[in-house]
Order: sequence, then structure tokens, then C-alpha cells
Amino acid sequence: MQAYFDNSATTKPCPEATAAVNEALTANWGNPSSLHYVGISADRIIADAKEAVAGELHCSPEEIFFTSGGTESNNLAIIGAARQMRRYGNKIVSTSVEHPSVDETLKYLAGEGFEIVRLGVNKDGVIDVNELYEAVDAGTVLITMMLVNNEVGSVMPVQAARKAADRAKSKALIHCDAVQAFGKTDVRPSRLGADIITVSSHKIHGPKGAGALYIKKGVRIKPLIFGGEQENKMRPGTQATPAIAGFGAAVRALPDKDAQAKRTAELKNYMLGLFREAGGIEVNSPENALPYITNISVEGIKSEPMLNFLSSKGVCVSAGSACSGGKKSRVLSAMGLDSYRLESPLRISFSRYTTKEEIDYLAAMIAAGKNEIRRIK
Amino acid sequence: MQAYFDNSATTKPCPEATAAVNEALTANWGNPSSLHYVGISADRIIADAKEAVAGELHCSPEEIFFTSGGTESNNLAIIGAARQMRRYGNKIVSTSVEHPSVDETLKYLAGEGFEIVRLGVNKDGVIDVNELYEAVDAGTVLITMMLVNNEVGSVMPVQAARKAADRAKSKALIHCDAVQAFGKTDVRPSRLGADIITVSSHKIHGPKGAGALYIKKGVRIKPLIFGGEQENKMRPGTQATPAIAGFGAAVRALPDKDAQAKRTAELKNYMLGLFREAGGIEVNSPENALPYITNISVEGIKSEPMLNFLSSKGVCVSAGSACSGGKKSRVLSAMGLDSYRLESPLRISFSRYTTKEEIDYLAAMIAAGKNEIRRIK
Repeated sequence: MQAYFDNSATTKPCPEATAAVNEALTANWGNPSSLHYVGISADRIIADAKEAVAGELHCSPEEIFFTSGGTESNNLAIIGAARQMRRYGNKIVSTSVEHPSVDETLKYLAGEGFEIVRLGVNKDGVIDVNELYEAVDAGTVLITMMLVNNEVGSVMPVQAARKAADRAKSKALIHCDAVQAFGKTDVRPSRLGADIITVSSHKIHGPKGAGALYIKKGVRIKPLIFGGEQENKMRPGTQATPAIAGFGAAVRALPDKDAQAKRTAELKNYMLGLFREAGGIEVNSPENALPYITNISVEGIKSEPMLNFLSSKGVCVSAGSACSGGKKSRVLSAMGLDSYRLESPLRISFSRYTTKEEIDYLAAMIAAGKNEIRRIK
Repeated sequence: MQAYFDNSATTKPCPEATAAVNEALTANWGNPSSLHYVGISADRIIADAKEAVAGELHCSPEEIFFTSGGTESNNLAIIGAARQMRRYGNKIVSTSVEHPSVDETLKYLAGEGFEIVRLGVNKDGVIDVNELYEAVDAGTVLITMMLVNNEVGSVMPVQAARKAADRAKSKALIHCDAVQAFGKTDVRPSRLGADIITVSSHKIHGPKGAGALYIKKGVRIKPLIFGGEQENKMRPGTQATPAIAGFGAAVRALPDKDAQAKRTAELKNYMLGLFREAGGIEVNSPENALPYITNISVEGIKSEPMLNFLSSKGVCVSAGSACSGGKKSRVLSAMGLDSYRLESPLRISFSRYTTKEEIDYLAAMIAAGKNEIRRIK
């Protein structure tokens, strides 16, 4: 049996996305910048997909800029905003639980002379809003905060960033990495108070190779790469029309968010019930986490042998971010977890394709893994 | 009839590439960084495609780094090399006929304090090697030169760059934008003397959204974006496995270069014969241009109305680079063309799918366009 529980790392492309990619490869394969009819039909892919993404974000298509993915979007947002705003100050406020594509980019900017403040989180993986208010000052040029944490599913008070900037009389731009939230919970820039938002295709059953940046009308940031006039010069280079077509189709195929969240929460509760029955499993995610991501620790079993055992049985989970390359979780450390729980995390992430049968199998295989791995020792 | 003569802007994906993209979307859709079996089968896509690209370049797969395309590869090469080499000097030598993704990147680096020297070209669109020798000095940190020009098909003496650096006792890195050359002529780094080479998928019947950078073993450049450990940290972010799979398949499907060049030269000569018969057409490309690209000017007819007329008849050509957004050609200006020829260029670019029948139709439609457009006036 195959049971895929690593949907925070990537998702299986939905049939609608695959069909759209195919059409972009076989029918509308032109260069969207070309002025002839083959180019014009390819350019329509970009316009259609922008409309889809803008619809989901409740913004204007002109505020959507396509990139190669979430990592590039986060880099463009953060480096672009920092360079644009440098004359107003050099402080950037963020959190200690951001994705590597944010955290490593902040390290790079520290090398360029920016002062980086990373707010800690409580045991629920959430920052303290008062600490945010204290950290943001008049010289703060950027606040960057994820909406949903990729390892534990905690939801951050992003809307407090705007308030913090206003209180400090700072011109700070607000960037939100919404990669794990997009398509699952409300990501309207107006509600979040965000100027710049990162979203990605392959976390919502679209193909890898496409992401987008929402940039609020009137907000200016510096581009990261240079060349042609594509994406209004914000992101030059021939657009990846197949991936962008698939991204747009995946957005249009998103189910009703509330109904899906309810179904997912039921599945999650069912899984937690099985874990309670089995015993020896601690839940690292906070209770009010988004139901799609559940981080657990299996008592006495390190992550790697369990991952390998589960993989050998057809079950896919992860120890943390696929982008962190197997290092100890910064997120769980920041949440102050006991050291044994830090060594044994498993991230179980659901999608709309997750079934009860898969969950039964997962629970059974975790139990089998515990026996097997202990026996090996 | 559809007659597509804009293969320098983009090419139709070959069936092998389309099939490979599909497999990456439906079978091997995992995250290549994931440690479970779904991730491992996706990671094999990257390894296979690297092997294909490395085979074509006669280099090691470890020297290949995937990016989102030619524009990103050129930016990474040039900005990454300049930042890495800054302590040795601040001069960059290039040419006046580079693609916008090189030329605009050089403008950006000028703003960061680098001195940019752009060598002129002769009427054949080629630099003077002696001028190159004179321009390169001990403080030159980068020489960046395209191999085949994208507007006229002229072939640059890239191998002289290494010699220029050696003569000047400079540590300069040599970068070559080989996007228009790759798959059509020999692009071996050892023969070119290049440290860094840019290639792209969608110019060789692969999908848009993938490119690569060859970086010679031992050569170090700074990354442009930051995040996970993908591509040995040179290019973080979940790889675009569908596009990369298609890129690899397109490389493996490349026909024999010599046989293809011979066939293409015959078609080109056939076309030039038709143009001579018709009269009133001047060839802007040099005689020894790569046969895939032929730049012409139609006497008395500006590019735009002719492009539109041809497009209405199913014929796709361009006025120049799709990435230059319709501005007057820097390349033809640098070649010193008469002003009327500067206003009327048409770039006709062939692929391995180009047929004699399409060429007959092109010549007939250019003749029809001359009559039609003059009549409108």
C-alpha cells in the first residue's frame, strides 16, 4: 500500500494541472513575448493563470508576478524589499521558525549590513505580539513572517505586523510567506495587512517550477535578476508557461476551503485517537494548528530509522522541512521541546486526497516500526 | 498553413520531452529532497537529466547546476562570478551584442561599481580579437561572451577570452552564454576555454522553465538566491522536476549536429535563392553565420506591419529578440547597418522540423506582404 503523508514537502499534481501542462506543451507552446499568433496564444496562459491566482487572493492580476517557485519568491520579496527600503533604515524583523528560503536569505542580508531580529516562539510555535511591537522601530524596513509554519502547522499573527509598523511610525514593508497556507486558509492581503505575499504551485497539487509573488499596487521592490521585460521587469526571462498553466489550473481546482478544513480536522482527530490508543506518541504541533500538518515524536525512536522503515512499507512522512537537509529542527528547538522529542520528530502532512485507510495503515506501520527498530537495537 | 520560423525565440517541445514531463507529473512527482522512496524516484530525474546535459557538454554531471532558464543562468553566472572575484579587481569585459539577460545584468553590476567594457563588432557581428586582448587587463575579473548571436547567428571567438586572460595575467573567469549554440554546434567547455556556460531547455525542443549552468570543477561563484541545499546550494529551491525531466529528454533526442547543420545549411541556401529571385531583400546575417538564424531586411517595409501580415497568414518570424520588447536592435546597430535596414529586420530561425514547403510559403508570403503593405500606404 502507498500512503503519502508528506504533502507539506510536495503534492501529487491534480489531473487538471497535468492536463493544463500538457496543453501548454503541445498546443500553446509559443514564447509569450513573441508578437505573432503563436506567442499571443502562449501569453494567454499567463493572463489566465494570473487571474486564477489573483482570484484566490482577492487581488488584481496586475499584482501577481510569476517566479520559479516559493524559494525564489521569498528571496525576491526579502532582498528586493530590503534593497528598495535601505534609505529608511536597516532593521528587519522576522521569527525564529521561518523556512530556510527566508532564514538563509536573512543571513545573506546580515552580511550586507542589515540588522536581523528573529522573534522567539512559545511552546505552541507562535510569536508573542508584544515582543513584535517592542522589536519594530522607526528604522525597521521589513517585517517578514510566515502565515502557517511548515513543520508544525502553527498559525502566526501576521496581521499584527502592520499594526506594529504603524505604532512605530515605520515605513516597513510587510512580507508574508504563505506557501503552507495558500489554498488551505484565507490569504487575503487586505486581511493580513501584507504588502508582499509568497505562494507556490507544488504545495497545492500544481507542478513544481512555478510560484508567485503578490506585490500590492504602489509598493516597489528591486528585482533580483535582470534581462527582458517579462513580468513587468520584476522577473525577466521567458515564463515557464507549462508550469504556470498547471499552477493556474491547480488553483481553479482547489476545493472549498472551509469544507476541506473540516474534513481534514476530522481525519486528524481520528489519527490522534489511534495514536492515543497506541501510546508512546507525543504531539508536537499545537492544538490550534492548521489540521493539515501534525508533528509528532515517537518515544525512544529516532526519526531516521523510523522514516526508512515507513518508506520500506510504502509510507511517506518526513522529519521536517525537505529543504533543511536532515539537520535538527530549528522550529522544534525554538518551541523548547525536550531533547528526546527533538531527535524523534515525524511530520505527517495531509492533502485533500488523504484517506482514513491510509491513516489506519500509517498508525499500524508506526507500531510495527517501534517493534522492529527496538528489536534491531 | 502554419510556418514557424521563430525557433530562436522558442521551439516546439519534442514528443520525447512532453512524455518525460508527463511522467514527472504522474509517476515521479515527489520532492527530490525527500528521503523516502517517493522522493528518491524524483531525485533520479535530476540525476538522469544532469547526465544528459553533461554528456552533451562532455563534462561531469557534478559540474551541471539546474536553474529556471537561460536568463537566471546568465544572472547567476555573471553576478555570482563578479561578487566572488571582486577582491581581484572590478573590470568586466563583454560585447555590445549580448542578450538582454547579460546586458541588463552588466548594467546592474555597473551600479554596484564594476567597470563594464563592451567590445564593438564588425559588419559580420563579430568582435575583433585584438580589441579583446587590449581590453582585458590584470584587474579584469570576468569575461562574458555569447557563442552564437541570437539575432544574426554570428559565431564569436569565445576561445580567445581564455588567451586574453592568460596574456594579461588576470584571474578572470570566462563565462559563455551558449543558449543559441547548445545542441547545434560544439559547446565543450574544454574547447571554448570557458569556466561557466549557460544553456537552456526551450531552445532545443525542451519545455520552458529549465536551464543549466556549467561551472567548471574548482571554480567558485556566489549563489544568487538562498534557502535549502538543492543543487549543492548553488541554486536552492525545490527543483522543477517536470521541466528538468523534459530538458534531459530533449537533450537525449538531439540529432547528429553535423548532419543537422548540413541539412539546415541546404535549406538556408534554398531560402536565400528564393529571396534573390524575388529581389529587394538584404541579408543582415554574415555569410559564416550558424545556418539556423538568418536576419534579413525587406526593402521599404518596416518590421512590424510585415510581422503582423505574416502572422495573419500563419507565418511566425520576429524582428529580433523576444526578450527585447520591440526596441530597435542593439545588435544590428552595433554592426553598423544603414538606418533603413535597422527599421526592417526580420529574423528567420530554423529548427530540425523546418521544411522546404514552409520556406516556399514564407517567401510567397513575404512577397504578398510587400504588395499588401505598399497598397495600404
